[in-house]
Amino acid sequence: MQSNIKGQGLITLTTDFGTADWFVGTMKGVILRINPRATLVDISHEIPAGDVRAGALALRASYRFFPAKTVHLVVVDPGVGSARSGLVIETEDCLFVGPDNGVLSWALIGQKVQAVHRLENEKLFLRPVSQTFHGRDIFGPAAAHLSAGVPCSALGPKQPKWQKLHWPIAKRQGDAICGQVIYIDRFGNAITNLDEEACGFARSTAGACLVGRVRCPLGEFYGAVPLGRPVGVWGSSGFLEIAVNGDNAARRLGLKVGSTVKFFPKPVLCRGLRSGGEGRA
Amino acid sequence: MQSNIKGQGLITLTTDFGTADWFVGTMKGVILRINPRATLVDISHEIPAGDVRAGALALRASYRFFPAKTVHLVVVDPGVGSARSGLVIETEDCLFVGPDNGVLSWALIGQKVQAVHRLENEKLFLRPVSQTFHGRDIFGPAAAHLSAGVPCSALGPKQPKWQKLHWPIAKRQGDAICGQVIYIDRFGNAITNLDEEACGFARSTAGACLVGRVRCPLGEFYGAVPLGRPVGVWGSSGFLEIAVNGDNAARRLGLKVGSTVKFFPKPVLCRGLRSGGEGRA
Amino acid sequence: MQSNIKGQGLITLTTDFGTADWFVGTMKGVILRINPRATLVDISHEIPAGDVRAGALALRASYRFFPAKTVHLVVVDPGVGSARSGLVIETEDCLFVGPDNGVLSWALIGQKVQAVHRLENEKLFLRPVSQTFHGRDIFGPAAAHLSAGVPCSALGPKQPKWQKLHWPIAKRQGDAICGQVIYIDRFGNAITNLDEEACGFARSTAGACLVGRVRCPLGEFYGAVPLGRPVGVWGSSGFLEIAVNGDNAARRLGLKVGSTVKFFPKPVLCRGLRSGGEGRA
Repeated sequence: MQSNIKGQGLITLTTDFGTADWFVGTMKGVILRINPRATLVDISHEIPAGDVRAGALALRASYRFFPAKTVHLVVVDPGVGSARSGLVIETEDCLFVGPDNGVLSWALIGQKVQAVHRLENEKLFLRPVSQTFHGRDIFGPAAAHLSAGVPCSALGPKQPKWQKLHWPIAKRQGDAICGQVIYIDRFGNAITNLDEEACGFARSTAGACLVGRVRCPLGEFYGAVPLGRPVGVWGSSGFLEIAVNGDNAARRLGLKVGSTVKFFPKPVLCRGLRSGGEGRA
Repeated sequence: MQSNIKGQGLITLTTDFGTADWFVGTMKGVILRINPRATLVDISHEIPAGDVRAGALALRASYRFFPAKTVHLVVVDPGVGSARSGLVIETEDCLFVGPDNGVLSWALIGQKVQAVHRLENEKLFLRPVSQTFHGRDIFGPAAAHLSAGVPCSALGPKQPKWQKLHWPIAKRQGDAICGQVIYIDRFGNAITNLDEEACGFARSTAGACLVGRVRCPLGEFYGAVPLGRPVGVWGSSGFLEIAVNGDNAARRLGLKVGSTVKFFPKPVLCRGLRSGGEGRA
Repeated sequence: MQSNIKGQGLITLTTDFGTADWFVGTMKGVILRINPRATLVDISHEIPAGDVRAGALALRASYRFFPAKTVHLVVVDPGVGSARSGLVIETEDCLFVGPDNGVLSWALIGQKVQAVHRLENEKLFLRPVSQTFHGRDIFGPAAAHLSAGVPCSALGPKQPKWQKLHWPIAKRQGDAICGQVIYIDRFGNAITNLDEEACGFARSTAGACLVGRVRCPLGEFYGAVPLGRPVGVWGSSGFLEIAVNGDNAARRLGLKVGSTVKFFPKPVLCRGLRSGGEGRA
């Protein structure tokens, strides 16, 4: 259970602090006071306030593109100050630091977890610890010490489990695989929970989707359909995305997190009442 | 008066430039041309345009979390191009660089100032100096040279004083200490000017607040009251904050910068007409 | 054609990815996996989605403030996945990486181009290459390798030309030089295409502008006119800007990208029906 950290000092930051206030900056100051050689990379500070699921998805979609031994610090923490624990979770590849509210759990799906420790070593905290900003006072210092080579075991006692968020699993319904929108990105593309595993085969553009009553052919890329038309694309995060070429799909098709998307491996079976782009859905 | 800079090269940046345009980036380019080893940390670039008080508060709330000898560069400068000076102010701990319009002054309250110099050494400017972007042409270069170990005295002549912004002082009114909202953060929490010193005793949750006609009990953290209820919390920046558990307090309670908040050390004396959370204030 | 890169490792990033999602972060992770010593500086990630001209202007206005040999990575790429190429373009001073859709072209006006190569060496890509995120899979890796000293010629075959965006050229009309607004910045200042070259003489405040029917005197800086009054200023990017002292000029004067601005070198010839500031234009 002894850590084997190379101490390269890379820390990613994912929070709901926003960038207008001084919160991210002060957390970085505290980290750099502990490890002046740390390299800090922002994933996002615009996770919607308190939205643990959005934070969990941002982490799951981004962490694997970073070098081995990176420390991934995630602070989306609506329960700050309450009884929830802080955790460091070590896998074969990297380290995750954050509150034990599920925000780390989607990144850990399918990972081999090597150690889980609670952040309880008060000697490593910023003192006095506030009750409203554990990112600065507990989580940031933990990430800083880890990035400098301190082993997980120094941060607190072992804990066997961690909170897990429900991951919506796609289900077969007749000829379709029935999934849902899990995220709307800045371009209005609707990212679904339909991945290769859910769809039971490798990415291809043979299928089609049904979004509400609008049929979306699959394409290699957004521009594979005429301007203004919807298209299903195997997106960069490994999930099927619903897009509209040159437009905002969420707005055009009325999609939200939780909206149903049906995937038909054989497009002939996908009978929407209308083909896409003829009007608003 | 000789500087004793360790030259560790950390520079924080606080501006009202926004992040949509190329202004912050070009300022960083100029800094890195002068000191390629500088480490740059953004505090905020979303200070409301020209809002010197908001910039002053962001600096006051953040600077002390950074390592000694950090250079804090602040450019909120509605008078750019006019007769106002640029300054570097050195304290025992760190260096502040910015326009002499008060934006540096709140961070200096209670600090031991060691040197104040005007930025007038044109050899250290980016030439030609524009009349609209001294952040890039004067302040950024000054911070870069300081971060590389150039002493304050090389930047220009000594100046005895600097512009000071009025800091709103809380006042006793009968049984209450009467303060005001000085900042609304991204979560809608209303940060007041009530700190331990203003309230005359160490942080405790014994008191209560009156916000308009709404009574707010004090709590250890936001979740100390039921969802939707207001709570006063000793915030992470050292000030009393008015929050609503799970909601935006500024919107819920109609709070703005300047709104009155009364603190009652003995909660029994805090007689609001309504207790919080029963409706909109 | 052999590159002579010093490998100092500075990379600037200009994209339309926004900062709410994890896209910028993952691109940085991929870059740091290839070159852990790279220094990354954000120019902007808030280029309006797919707005190649806004990206081209941000690059043109910022690149020359960075050290020699900086790699400027620009990903505004509405045609991602289609047949458009990716390019690296090397000048005497620096390197530009991005899609061949014109986004690099305005920065290259007047530059001596030394080499242009298509990004076709698949060994340097992140595999598998997605069809929707070439910033992460192709452009980011190319910039990372270049920043580590890999020569342009290793990235793919030479290409003689690159796509050029039309740069709107100011024209003489009687006594005026007739230009247009090319950008509205965060303060509402309207940046025009009128530069020293277009206006045929060095910056001076002798002239005046006509914006719609509003006359704007030229000033040294924004505060050279009373509060609420319009003013033409030679801006920090080298272009004439229309501003309103203490206000948002674009909103006050109804300016948009493409709006006409006439510059009169002899102000007596600038006869607006109204002088500025008397009302809304």
